[in-house]
Amino acid sequence: MSDICFMTATEMAERIRRRDLSAREVMEAHLAQIKRVNPVVNAIVTQVPEDEALALADAADAALARGEDVGPLHGLPIVHKDLEETRGLRTTFGSPIYRDYVPNHDTLLVERLKRAGALTIGKTNVPEFGAGSQTFNPIFGPTRNPYDTTKTCGGSSGGAAVALACGMIPIADGSDTGGSLRNPGNFNNVVGFRPSAGRVPTWPAAMGWSMLGVKGPMARTVADVALMLSAIAGPDPRSPISLPEPGSFFARPLERDFRGVRIAWCPDLGGLPVDPRVTAVLESQRQTFSDLGCVVEEATPDLSDADEIFHVLRALNFAVRHAEHLETHRDLIKDTVIWNTEEGLKLSALDVGRAEVKRTALYHRMRAFFEKYEFLICVVNQVPPFDVEQPYPTEINGVPMENYIAWMKSAYYITVTGHPAISVPCGFTPEGLPVGVQIVGRYHDDFGVLQLAHAFEQATQVWRRRPPLLEELA
Amino acid sequence: MSDICFMTATEMAERIRRRDLSAREVMEAHLAQIKRVNPVVNAIVTQVPEDEALALADAADAALARGEDVGPLHGLPIVHKDLEETRGLRTTFGSPIYRDYVPNHDTLLVERLKRAGALTIGKTNVPEFGAGSQTFNPIFGPTRNPYDTTKTCGGSSGGAAVALACGMIPIADGSDTGGSLRNPGNFNNVVGFRPSAGRVPTWPAAMGWSMLGVKGPMARTVADVALMLSAIAGPDPRSPISLPEPGSFFARPLERDFRGVRIAWCPDLGGLPVDPRVTAVLESQRQTFSDLGCVVEEATPDLSDADEIFHVLRALNFAVRHAEHLETHRDLIKDTVIWNTEEGLKLSALDVGRAEVKRTALYHRMRAFFEKYEFLICVVNQVPPFDVEQPYPTEINGVPMENYIAWMKSAYYITVTGHPAISVPCGFTPEGLPVGVQIVGRYHDDFGVLQLAHAFEQATQVWRRRPPLLEELA
Repeated sequence: MSDICFMTATEMAERIRRRDLSAREVMEAHLAQIKRVNPVVNAIVTQVPEDEALALADAADAALARGEDVGPLHGLPIVHKDLEETRGLRTTFGSPIYRDYVPNHDTLLVERLKRAGALTIGKTNVPEFGAGSQTFNPIFGPTRNPYDTTKTCGGSSGGAAVALACGMIPIADGSDTGGSLRNPGNFNNVVGFRPSAGRVPTWPAAMGWSMLGVKGPMARTVADVALMLSAIAGPDPRSPISLPEPGSFFARPLERDFRGVRIAWCPDLGGLPVDPRVTAVLESQRQTFSDLGCVVEEATPDLSDADEIFHVLRALNFAVRHAEHLETHRDLIKDTVIWNTEEGLKLSALDVGRAEVKRTALYHRMRAFFEKYEFLICVVNQVPPFDVEQPYPTEINGVPMENYIAWMKSAYYITVTGHPAISVPCGFTPEGLPVGVQIVGRYHDDFGVLQLAHAFEQATQVWRRRPPLLEELA
Repeated sequence: MSDICFMTATEMAERIRRRDLSAREVMEAHLAQIKRVNPVVNAIVTQVPEDEALALADAADAALARGEDVGPLHGLPIVHKDLEETRGLRTTFGSPIYRDYVPNHDTLLVERLKRAGALTIGKTNVPEFGAGSQTFNPIFGPTRNPYDTTKTCGGSSGGAAVALACGMIPIADGSDTGGSLRNPGNFNNVVGFRPSAGRVPTWPAAMGWSMLGVKGPMARTVADVALMLSAIAGPDPRSPISLPEPGSFFARPLERDFRGVRIAWCPDLGGLPVDPRVTAVLESQRQTFSDLGCVVEEATPDLSDADEIFHVLRALNFAVRHAEHLETHRDLIKDTVIWNTEEGLKLSALDVGRAEVKRTALYHRMRAFFEKYEFLICVVNQVPPFDVEQPYPTEINGVPMENYIAWMKSAYYITVTGHPAISVPCGFTPEGLPVGVQIVGRYHDDFGVLQLAHAFEQATQVWRRRPPLLEELA
């Protein structure tokens, strides 16, 4: 196994830029790693032919040789989530309906990654239509957790997280409605960051003003996530809710003195059932925040109505996205997507309006809470990675889960607040399964979240523990 | 009639600040003007007792005498729209249900106006719950157009526009969902500016992320509107959709060279029925834009679906706001509000979702249109001020109107695009009724709209023609 594959993206990009390492060497190392590891974990489901990938790398090297100005991700191989449309490259959304769909355009996110110099070499696996946090679909099957291949990698950016954890790519894009950037980060010992809505502008978007689903960066370290964010953040007229700060806002140093910063410690978000193995990992690192100088206090935000708000707004999204699919291809759609769409079709406009009223009240309660605390710390998910054959957990600590996403409340409660949130490696269960910690920042304070996550990561270095699988395959 | 009352707000504030004119003199002049004119037009429906108003003015003078730093509106009398909650001052929303409601808080808008030094002396009349662009309600009756008291002043910021036109106040706040800042500006020869959503942050707001209804400034001149905007714009954490530019962004000089700037000339927005008297006034000023150096071309934006989008999103707002009122006080609500609420209660979530999808498509069509043109010029309303006894026009040029707001399409089509738009005095019908012109700018380019409106106003000076009524009452 090449050392190149576990270099940080930051170092890799820097060495490519100063021609200390060629993009071709980087590409070859990653292609070899994919060949070695991917058949076991099934993270990358569509691949650009190797000769084309190498030609991209050669072109990147040639640009440097000519002394061209290059972007911050120049020469880094990347695979895009299979929910992102990629020009000329199959995009299935994990659905048999789109088994052979080859888009004629890139999404804005893919366009920005390419413009920043990243080299597209494939697509990462997703759950069918990205629904649920378990990455499996009838086209490609499941993606497996590299720390235990009998377990799920989570999702929906599951292929992305596994590809990162296995050194198959240095950076990956993802998206997050109910936790799809944070959950697979959590389950695979990598970093998944759900930025504020509008931070990474979304185009195309069916509902351009919707703030539930966002795009975001994933990587093995927080600094790499920030590097990637610097390339994909910033306004674009194609998104009416774009936030104004340019990407360079995230290229600033992440170091910060956290002494005296008030943190609310609330692992279970006020009474959600949490597997004791997850709680134990979080508690084992509580002192780390104190050691950073933070004032850590137990405090619980009032997340009343978050569940209802999420269910209504999510079901509305499903109705908009899949009402027609249900009519034309019902037999090709998994039960949970049918259920969620039909839940949406049952709703009235007033249900949506009242969910918005409750979301607004929740926003104001969070605003008051975050006047006292700068950050909130909680679990990312209430369970560790579960059996890969199980579509979703049906109970936690004996508490039955009412539907396929109920086990993800600790992630989607945060979604509806609109606050930025990150999953950073925190530790491992006794069985060796990864557990992350969720750091939630103030409304729109994406940079603050990255700074605290970076400090925590530097103090703990949990991210360095690689999947044992890799040794076996080496 | 005192000269003070028709001074611009800009000059008035400046002279107060340099103590060339006292806030007390200003207050006395305006109180006298209100006493003289208001009984005829019924614009101000709740008034602070005179001694309290004078005490506010004396306090403003005393602050200056002590050399305190004062805000940009220091010493200017203001009356707030009766949809704005004002602490300790009756706020009826034009509804008998709230006949005796005295809020215990100010809205954020009122709070900012007070902080900027404006002196609250009352409330301006509105249609019942602000519904419809005709200012009448069962508590206070109609507000009359000062250019012809048998005609409507429009609405819903109707009392505000009339109070300005009659020199009863130098600045006024308003709000605009389907044209409620622009329409009364249009009908009363004053300026009404609908800024971008989030420009003037709204709190409290039932649905904090909603962008249909906005708050904004009204005044007799564009420079006065900009002055007021500089005091009420800028982010506040109480609104999650606040735009980031500080208020001072709008205190910059409005002068700009418009040579070569491309303008789309489209008075009827592509086939809306327009009263020929309105068209004639617009056409009479088309040359003014050319004289400013603009490249004026006939071009029509594709506003397909704007009608449906507006109806769905507006009806949703009504359902959220009034579903309970219908249950508890149906007999105290006007038919049009009942109808609009029941329209909302009939809608499904999918109707709302599909309206959002169509709104997004409309946004992208407008984006493409505004790549070619920097501004769009059209009518504000398709009719001149109509009979004050008529609740709403039922036909225009023989085209029947399908409901109580159908005559306002030229205003609310622009609302759903999300673009900033202003109504500036443009001319008069042969009968002497005011007609404004609507200038629509690029998404979020509120300042550009103010600049072009200012240049147009300087060139035409239409705003200087005062209501003949004032001579009669002098």
